[in-house]
Amino acid sequence: MSVNVPTSIDLLAKARLLEERWQPHVVAELNDYQFKVARLKGGFVWHDHPDTDEAFLVLEGQLRIDLPSGAVHLGPGELFVVPAGMQHNPHADEDTLVVLIEPRGVRNTGSAGGERTAEQDRWI
Amino acid sequence: MSVNVPTSIDLLAKARLLEERWQPHVVAELNDYQFKVARLKGGFVWHDHPDTDEAFLVLEGQLRIDLPSGAVHLGPGELFVVPAGMQHNPHADEDTLVVLIEPRGVRNTGSAGGERTAEQDRWI
Repeated sequence: MSVNVPTSIDLLAKARLLEERWQPHVVAELNDYQFKVARLKGGFVWHDHPDTDEAFLVLEGQLRIDLPSGAVHLGPGELFVVPAGMQHNPHADEDTLVVLIEPRGVRNTGSAGGERTAEQDRWI
Repeated sequence: MSVNVPTSIDLLAKARLLEERWQPHVVAELNDYQFKVARLKGGFVWHDHPDTDEAFLVLEGQLRIDLPSGAVHLGPGELFVVPAGMQHNPHADEDTLVVLIEPRGVRNTGSAGGERTAEQDRWI
């Protein structure tokens, strides 16, 4: 799959294809950055990405990102950039579809690692 | 303005604030990348960005991106990444609101330059 094919990508349609939760799948690349869709429900794990910011864009549903200073709430069309090195823990009461934008190779569990670490570079 | 403030950004609400067309305004930063909203209507100029890909995400309206190989059509929620060095010319029949995602400092008219070149680093 290549980003050089001149067709647009329907982000919500791609995200709706996902069945597993907390398993980001790449839909496009921008230089060395990736757009990844993910289905989220429930809580994740506290973690950070020491070397990079991480953008969350909600497509459908409601996302809460817990931060040391409080929580950020995102609905459809809302964006939040978690600064590099900031601990965060995403949470969704109901199934929520999001886009993650970050450099290629960023691990979903960041420096925390553990059993919820997803495989890299899976495309959908 | 800082991306470190823990509030979400409503992309469409930000874009609707724009009155001028073809004047990208920054709404968030991700490392050395910027999310910029823009209001587009009519045609632009053929140009390319030799050193970087450029992502277009439509928020409202319909965007056609003319490419040497044909045209790509994007509606709300659709993404297209123009590869580095590829000539392109965006066109919108009606007012269309988009997000551009690209490295900080990318000029809207790329290597073409000219009178439609917008000022850099204006935030909204």
